[in-house]
Amino acid sequence: MTSGSAVPLNYTSLKKKFEPFLSRRVENRFLKSFWDASELSDDVIELAGGMPNEKFFPVESIDLKISKIPFNNNPKWHDSFTTAHLDLESPGELPIARSLQYAETKGLPPLLRFVKDMVARINRPLFSDEAESNWDVILSGGSNDSMFKVFETICDESTTVMIEEFTFTPAMSNVEATGAKVVPIKMSLTFDRDSQGIDVDYLTQLLDNWSTGPYKHLNKPKVLYTIATGQNPTGMSLPQWKREKIYQLAQRHDFLIVEDDPYGYLYFPSFNPENPLENPYYSSNLTTERYLNDFLIKSFLTLDTDARVIRLETFSKIFAPGLRLSFIIANKFILEKILNLADITTRAPSGTSQAIVYSTIKAMAESNMPSSLSLKEAMFESWIQWIMQIASKYNHRKNLTLKALYETESYQAGQFTVMEPSAGMFIIIKINWGNFGKPDDLPQQMDLLDKCLVKNGVKLVLGYKMAVCLNYSKENSDFLRLTIAYAKDDFQLIEASKRIGSGIKEFFENYKD
Amino acid sequence: MTSGSAVPLNYTSLKKKFEPFLSRRVENRFLKSFWDASELSDDVIELAGGMPNEKFFPVESIDLKISKIPFNNNPKWHDSFTTAHLDLESPGELPIARSLQYAETKGLPPLLRFVKDMVARINRPLFSDEAESNWDVILSGGSNDSMFKVFETICDESTTVMIEEFTFTPAMSNVEATGAKVVPIKMSLTFDRDSQGIDVDYLTQLLDNWSTGPYKHLNKPKVLYTIATGQNPTGMSLPQWKREKIYQLAQRHDFLIVEDDPYGYLYFPSFNPENPLENPYYSSNLTTERYLNDFLIKSFLTLDTDARVIRLETFSKIFAPGLRLSFIIANKFILEKILNLADITTRAPSGTSQAIVYSTIKAMAESNMPSSLSLKEAMFESWIQWIMQIASKYNHRKNLTLKALYETESYQAGQFTVMEPSAGMFIIIKINWGNFGKPDDLPQQMDLLDKCLVKNGVKLVLGYKMAVCLNYSKENSDFLRLTIAYAKDDFQLIEASKRIGSGIKEFFENYKD
Repeated sequence: MTSGSAVPLNYTSLKKKFEPFLSRRVENRFLKSFWDASELSDDVIELAGGMPNEKFFPVESIDLKISKIPFNNNPKWHDSFTTAHLDLESPGELPIARSLQYAETKGLPPLLRFVKDMVARINRPLFSDEAESNWDVILSGGSNDSMFKVFETICDESTTVMIEEFTFTPAMSNVEATGAKVVPIKMSLTFDRDSQGIDVDYLTQLLDNWSTGPYKHLNKPKVLYTIATGQNPTGMSLPQWKREKIYQLAQRHDFLIVEDDPYGYLYFPSFNPENPLENPYYSSNLTTERYLNDFLIKSFLTLDTDARVIRLETFSKIFAPGLRLSFIIANKFILEKILNLADITTRAPSGTSQAIVYSTIKAMAESNMPSSLSLKEAMFESWIQWIMQIASKYNHRKNLTLKALYETESYQAGQFTVMEPSAGMFIIIKINWGNFGKPDDLPQQMDLLDKCLVKNGVKLVLGYKMAVCLNYSKENSDFLRLTIAYAKDDFQLIEASKRIGSGIKEFFENYKD
Repeated sequence: MTSGSAVPLNYTSLKKKFEPFLSRRVENRFLKSFWDASELSDDVIELAGGMPNEKFFPVESIDLKISKIPFNNNPKWHDSFTTAHLDLESPGELPIARSLQYAETKGLPPLLRFVKDMVARINRPLFSDEAESNWDVILSGGSNDSMFKVFETICDESTTVMIEEFTFTPAMSNVEATGAKVVPIKMSLTFDRDSQGIDVDYLTQLLDNWSTGPYKHLNKPKVLYTIATGQNPTGMSLPQWKREKIYQLAQRHDFLIVEDDPYGYLYFPSFNPENPLENPYYSSNLTTERYLNDFLIKSFLTLDTDARVIRLETFSKIFAPGLRLSFIIANKFILEKILNLADITTRAPSGTSQAIVYSTIKAMAESNMPSSLSLKEAMFESWIQWIMQIASKYNHRKNLTLKALYETESYQAGQFTVMEPSAGMFIIIKINWGNFGKPDDLPQQMDLLDKCLVKNGVKLVLGYKMAVCLNYSKENSDFLRLTIAYAKDDFQLIEASKRIGSGIKEFFENYKD
């Protein structure tokens, strides 16, 4: 452990330390329950809780066909599919009599245990005690729901929140809905993995001189919201040294770090221009252990001596978004307040979604793994293997797209730079204005570029539309975001890349006039 | 149309009329989206939205086994089961490529259309125009989530909300989380169906004399929250004449009515002491039409000339609670504000839950219905038939329980009265203190009674724990709530009723001392 936590972090000390971070509205939030089933012996007939008997449910059983390989088009590969059967009594630890019933707000225990175990193994909070008792995980209804619950718990009209200058803008909506104010943080937009992302010198200056700086009319920030890995929209990841610096700033200026990480598992090894389609994920000696240790970028949790990090993960990108299933990791005191909010608002996320995720991972484990492994171990291993397959596909798509972009006439004429991403689902393309110089009416010019691109048959996102504050980021906002996630196949990505090339080329042809 | 709406209720007039009802915080809520896919032609490759391709989803298909009869224990009755198959491409209108994907916050279109059609047929808002364009329905993540969204949209620290003096207490938590204040409304606790529920004279007096009354320190109420049918905990339903009076009061004092209706489909015909197990649901001439017209109690929507009613329904009691799936019906302006909140918080409810509900109802329709009916018509008919089966089971359980309670020694000694419920999942038992007179320490005595009941092997809910304000309702809170929903079979309900009898008897044996 490093500085700042001589006191052991148990519930009492966490409460003392983090109570001042709570929103004014937290005190109004507590569930008025009117009975308690916990203390009854088995022979007592319980006519208290208003739960329907499970035999009132019209669904008797659910059978899932599960693909062990993404983009699994060959139904003849029997080995590449497996199945899961759920009914009122099975699987024993999570039958549909349980998952279709009212359930614990924090999530169904078997899935919750799986998730907490996964976090403990991949990104164990540095402040955690031996019993793993001062931190916890709760399930939530998608990352947007998680964000909302976190910000509602810590923000009100008096709060200032720092956000990377380009971001997933609905996060801002969430912060601003609480009445809090958002301050943009400068980023280094570069493909150099050792210097990309939040500009740490800027951040230091800003915080050290807050009272005389541009935001002196606002309270000092209580929170930094960051998509630290595979950032949206930039695809950049904070290098370890920046994470350490930022954490030290969080200690010095006492702010929380909300680390939103929907894309982190999709890590991209560096692009090899000599062999563009080289894909280290295909290497036969890439074990899950190597993927976890050498590929994945570690969470801020692993630096967190003080319990000031709140991490958000989701099943949306590695399973499916329609599940509306995500999870929140934080110290036990803050998480309890977030759970209080869930208790009186959404309650638990969908039990059907939870059952489907749990059963899918379990079925993968049972069909893949040597019987020498425990079920717990096998579930972890096979889930990570699934994630690696997803990541390998994304890495392939990224390579393919970079290659195709680099082959365009427009690129070769120096009209744009590609910010090779280090993780995630996005690639950004920065426009090079060359001899013309940067236009004064940059957003208008980018709108014209967008028209040219659509005319050439491709739709991207304009960088300036993802700026926290357009005035602040105008100079840097001459980029386009493309996603490699949705295209139906390689051919479509190659075709789209060509169209991007011709769209930019056409734009510059007219721009000259 | 009656008084108060000479102006046609379109979006503009609704906005003018209902803007003053919005919470102060509504103005902070809007989604900052950064692209718009709506205007693209088919040949444009869309690399904008960050949606994963559906072939990244590990689930290839979902097969449901669906019971057409609740408590369907005989797997040999082949006719009583049906199946539904969902995969990436089917059913065409809602394949899992769609339901497992990011989707519209308001709900997936096929299910939403089904629900709106159902509401239009059963409880069409009186203010609706011919095109059904000034009201709408959105799906939500369970009634608790609906409540939260409604109260967050209309309540803040300045708001007063009226609630029946006994209620589902988590509703209060929801109101109070916004900072609003709750005022209890007196109820007539009686099994007389023509006078049960909210005390309308009391309500009239209270509102007409607000400025000199007991709550004059609070703002005049902006909302009445009511569980008007099969109320929780009382099982009572507001008779039509009371609904009309309350609606007139809402017009005179300009408040909204939030009608929470999780139990309304579970209508109970009157108990027949001559033939306790008589169950009109078993009658062969009970058509869906008769059930809808003669049994179901109509929503406040059907009285709503002014668009001031917000109705909440849920799939929890008639399908399954673990789905976390419900819906909200309101005028288009207010509903838009509720949807804005959903956009930046939960977004859509679980797509897997939506797909399961839609496919189940469709499968029931396809297997039950004569082919002369359109799919839309068949889905409506078979869903109502399913609901009627659920209601028939609840009615049977209610009859059985009343009969068993009436047969107890304790009842026959006059120690309690049963408030025969008119709908829902609950029965309340009122204690008769007889010669002893009502105790001064009523809650303490009820706690002792609870101990006696548990000792006799049955757990109920104590009425006083569901009081909005115990001081206000002390005199009336000497009742117990039991649910007929969860017991595993008839025998358990009969046994529980006997235990209730012996528990109360034992309590009075000691009470004498």
